[in-house]
Amino acid sequence: MNKKQINVGLIGYGTVGKGVARILEANQKIVLTKVGKNVRIKSICDRNPIDRADLYVKNFKDIIRDPEIDLVVELIGGYEPARTIIIESLKAGKSVVTANKAVLAKYWDQIFTTAQDEQKAIYYEASVGGVIPVVQGLNEGLAVEEILEIKGILNGTTNFILSKMTKEGISYEDALKKAQVAGFAEADPSFDVNGIDTANKLAILASLAWGGWIKVKNIATKGISNLQAKDVHLTKDIGCIKLVGSAIQTKNGIDLSVEPRLVYHKHTFATVDNEYNAIMVRGKDCGDVLFYGKGAGQSPAASAVVSDIVNLSKFIVTNTAGIVTDVIYNRNKKIKILPAGDSGGEYYLRFTLADKPGMLAKLCGILGENKVSIASLTQPNINKGDFADVVILTHKTQNSNLENSIKKLKSLKSIVKTNPVKLKIEK
Amino acid sequence: MNKKQINVGLIGYGTVGKGVARILEANQKIVLTKVGKNVRIKSICDRNPIDRADLYVKNFKDIIRDPEIDLVVELIGGYEPARTIIIESLKAGKSVVTANKAVLAKYWDQIFTTAQDEQKAIYYEASVGGVIPVVQGLNEGLAVEEILEIKGILNGTTNFILSKMTKEGISYEDALKKAQVAGFAEADPSFDVNGIDTANKLAILASLAWGGWIKVKNIATKGISNLQAKDVHLTKDIGCIKLVGSAIQTKNGIDLSVEPRLVYHKHTFATVDNEYNAIMVRGKDCGDVLFYGKGAGQSPAASAVVSDIVNLSKFIVTNTAGIVTDVIYNRNKKIKILPAGDSGGEYYLRFTLADKPGMLAKLCGILGENKVSIASLTQPNINKGDFADVVILTHKTQNSNLENSIKKLKSLKSIVKTNPVKLKIEK
Repeated sequence: MNKKQINVGLIGYGTVGKGVARILEANQKIVLTKVGKNVRIKSICDRNPIDRADLYVKNFKDIIRDPEIDLVVELIGGYEPARTIIIESLKAGKSVVTANKAVLAKYWDQIFTTAQDEQKAIYYEASVGGVIPVVQGLNEGLAVEEILEIKGILNGTTNFILSKMTKEGISYEDALKKAQVAGFAEADPSFDVNGIDTANKLAILASLAWGGWIKVKNIATKGISNLQAKDVHLTKDIGCIKLVGSAIQTKNGIDLSVEPRLVYHKHTFATVDNEYNAIMVRGKDCGDVLFYGKGAGQSPAASAVVSDIVNLSKFIVTNTAGIVTDVIYNRNKKIKILPAGDSGGEYYLRFTLADKPGMLAKLCGILGENKVSIASLTQPNINKGDFADVVILTHKTQNSNLENSIKKLKSLKSIVKTNPVKLKIEK
Repeated sequence: MNKKQINVGLIGYGTVGKGVARILEANQKIVLTKVGKNVRIKSICDRNPIDRADLYVKNFKDIIRDPEIDLVVELIGGYEPARTIIIESLKAGKSVVTANKAVLAKYWDQIFTTAQDEQKAIYYEASVGGVIPVVQGLNEGLAVEEILEIKGILNGTTNFILSKMTKEGISYEDALKKAQVAGFAEADPSFDVNGIDTANKLAILASLAWGGWIKVKNIATKGISNLQAKDVHLTKDIGCIKLVGSAIQTKNGIDLSVEPRLVYHKHTFATVDNEYNAIMVRGKDCGDVLFYGKGAGQSPAASAVVSDIVNLSKFIVTNTAGIVTDVIYNRNKKIKILPAGDSGGEYYLRFTLADKPGMLAKLCGILGENKVSIASLTQPNINKGDFADVVILTHKTQNSNLENSIKKLKSLKSIVKTNPVKLKIEK
């Protein structure tokens, strides 16, 4: 091994890219100790010229073609040209680091098949949970665990919005504005608030856990934009509402969903506020393991990318990056997916009923007919006028039973004013 | 690389050893996928004959001498012959996996210097936090972080006892008996309840974090055996008492301690019950990262050992184990340690005073003179007779000011009945 140093080509010089350059350069000494060689940024590519003219490259192909570059860091996000950069870099014999959950979730098969064929490595710790080392945790820390369940608060933007709604009692719209001002939400926040970003990350974790490609389209995904301040208020004594990504191995297949859930105060997830993320992994032998940390922000994301660069460089110096696979991906492995909505649990329900005699009896009757057992029923009476809210916490029930009840109740327009609210409970 | 398989020699066939054999053998298929070769247990050494006569070896030296064995797993615990096994295995060109925190904390210098000299690797994930991948998290996940602080609930036995005291309102002695019955405390629990086990684990984490050898003797260590049910009761509305290991980088050196602390309910540590452990790492760029999982029990510990075996085997197949160092240990690095007790914070204090006029004024006066500012003062009045308990929560204060106050108060025997209780607060 005659390499004098590891040369990095950085593609994408936005917030995270700048953080990566800063952290890598500020820690040259510790990097040298860990890797045994210097790790230097040789070239930086961005759509626009940057303040570091000595390193600037206009065309990313010049980085991929550069024989001196050992490792390409893709930080532009989105599908293209990110996919092309990753695939072509691997084919050019380079190792890759990316923070791009969207491209991984969408092109999992192509990316990991290419990496295996080329015997090159791709690291992507920053794609899920920001600085939290959960990818490594699943791949290595829990190397031989049979994974039974993965649950996570995986999106900093929505968690920031939900924390504001909970703590300040404000509406979704006002909380979103605060998140935008604080820099935790984009001008167009739809990928975050619609749950798509969480679904991308859950797809990555589930694909790792079960060794096949679990696609985003298999994840029943609901966002937070329809969430009402009223439900946040009505539940605040027992818990708080969080956007939870969940993948559970059941007898009949893996049950995958992203949806707002009511997390009880004693659950660890209830302490996960603002831009923090948390991921719980349940294994057959290990029990529950939880990882928690900042899921958003320049420094946490950049720190995770630099860790990937350093850990991958340790293999590059001995020419072994990609020789031993890191992702156990078998494109022929069939993974059974449970059709969305088949799984059950305990639920929070809110109905708005016409405020006249017999309505409650009707409601309870329909729930009972559908085998939905009521744990508690309250009429918080914060509405005035002709309608009254009824809040129900259920015992464990099949979701299909619940959906049948709701369908029946909605058909009785005279008694149910608006769409019922349904939130699964995490205890 | 012509190895047909990786051969493991297992030394110590107690609870964890049996778990390692079971998990490794039950997961041969996934191990083969991850490592690319089979990983098999070739020999097992134990003081007593075992039920697997085909693998049994009476003398551990026969394992160290066996040229076919690639990896030695030391699971006998204690100092000797554990130290000899580790050192001689490394010298014999073998990689080592251990779960032994005591031997690592005591012989850090010798063990890691030998590993570096021999260019062999030693993995020890199970030595801290059971199944929680925190060693890997510190070494790799947060590879270039400047670590500012590490705090943890690191001992399952004491946490089980404290959980019982909190939830059932029972005494330390009764809770210890329950832990022994449940298999979470040894017949002689002194290493656990005196805080020594926690100190060993904290020494390992701190040594990793700051790249030098931080010795157990530098950790101000207090256990839980003097804890009274009364203080658990008096604090239950605001928090719970946990044994916390803490290492904080300050301007004047690293402040290291193990002691029971009052953890407020909203702190994540408050949700860590029974045999669970949690470790919080604060880095300059990453912020707070928390790891949580089972710190005790056969399966979690064995799962961590098997993960180490698999991850190390991935290097052994390419003959690169130990080539790139995993522990950044520089024996010449001087690490400044803060003398115990120099650091401060907010505190819970309980004094038992003679129940007569003027006593409170005297107490408040002495605290005030020593610059200890009172946030709240209550007289819970659960005592009857000539003495009354006074509970004080302080604002942030220097510990030395507090100790000076307590010294002064104790000299006034007529007013303070017993030793005051002092617990640092984690918010």
